[in-house]
Parts: sequence; structure tokens; C-alpha cells
Amino acid sequence: MTLTWTQIVIDSENPHTLAHWWSDVLGWPVIYEEDGEDEVEVAPHADAQPTLLFVPVPERKSLKNRLHLDFRPDDQAAEVERMLAVGATRVDVGQGDDVTWVVLADPEGNEFCILRAR
Amino acid sequence: MTLTWTQIVIDSENPHTLAHWWSDVLGWPVIYEEDGEDEVEVAPHADAQPTLLFVPVPERKSLKNRLHLDFRPDDQAAEVERMLAVGATRVDVGQGDDVTWVVLADPEGNEFCILRAR
Repeated sequence: MTLTWTQIVIDSENPHTLAHWWSDVLGWPVIYEEDGEDEVEVAPHADAQPTLLFVPVPERKSLKNRLHLDFRPDDQAAEVERMLAVGATRVDVGQGDDVTWVVLADPEGNEFCILRAR
Repeated sequence: MTLTWTQIVIDSENPHTLAHWWSDVLGWPVIYEEDGEDEVEVAPHADAQPTLLFVPVPERKSLKNRLHLDFRPDDQAAEVERMLAVGATRVDVGQGDDVTWVVLADPEGNEFCILRAR
């Protein structure tokens, strides 16, 4: 393999705040963050790739994202409630009422899905 | 851990074509594809997570994606040339001339970066 998939880069209004939100809700460590730098990197564990790299951009999110993250829970209802309690929101991207997953958005509006339990 | 990061979902005009393009350029296997289903999943290897899941959407990409993939090459120039030869394009997202990475887009316009060599 000549290309290693190292990162998902997430354009952010506030990379610090958004990265720490994801770190907290997923229980993942912040693996890169330095004073004076405005990029913050979060990963499932210290050596895991790909990581989530939050970088600053001037523009706000406007349209539905073309790429999004999916997560598999042990308990879907409990995870959705937990996410909503810390600032996630339910969003309607046209998924309808009969799907097995729940569509949420993070505090900057980035959509993600909590799939049915494993 | 109660949430497992299983997928990056990529909205696609043509999931089949786009998934096979990525599978070919990365040398990753197609791990899910069934007749009559319009979702195609590609992964670094059969048991790897997260995977790339290409799903159909009616709308075309319009804005710069808010999430994108980064790859670390062994040889940056060679990988960029290889990607361009099979249909990737160079794109300007305002990165300027002094950055160490190269910004490309896949055949549906999804931006990704080839970082400097490891």
C-alpha cells in the first residue's frame, strides 16, 4: 500500500470547541493540540488512524454535508439521549420514519448517524 | 466504548462508479455490493473500520465539502500523477502555493489531500 488513510478533516468554525465536544462524547483522546495552533486532532486511541482533524474555516456550514460519520452503538436509544443531552440535535435529511438509524447533528450542524445496535 | 466508528458515508451521484474508482486507486477491496442494492462499501481490508460507504443521492455536489479525506503517500509526486492519470483533478480551495499537501478531487468533485511523504 502506497497511500495510508490518515485523517478525516472537518472544517470548523471553532476547531477547539468542536474537537473537545467530539472527544468528550466519544471518549476519545485529543492527540494533537498546541498553543497558537488552531488545529485539533482526536482519535479513537493514540495510535489509531484515521483520526478526526478539526481545522478552522471562515465559512459556516450551509448545505447538508456530502460526507458524514456513522457510529454503531450498544444501545441506540441510550446513545441518542446521551448525545442530545450534551448538545446534539435531531435533523431531518429526508430519511423518513422507517429507517433503523437516527440522524443527529453536532453543535456546528455536521450530520452523523447512530445506527441500530450491534 | 459504547460507540464504534464504523463508516464514512459519501453521498454519490453514482455510488457504483465512484466506489470502484476509489477501490482501484487505493487498492482496497469492495466489501459490500449486491445486485439491486445501490450502496457500495470499500475498506482498507476486509475487517477494517471505518469503511467508505457510497450511497446514492439525487443532488450533485455544489459547495466545497466540509469533511474530506487525507492520505499519506510514500512518494507524493508519483501518487499525484497516478491519481491525475485516472481521473482525479487538481482543485483550488484557497490553499495557496506554500502548503506541503496537494488538493485533488475525485470524479464527483469530492476534495481529498495527498500529504507530504512520510
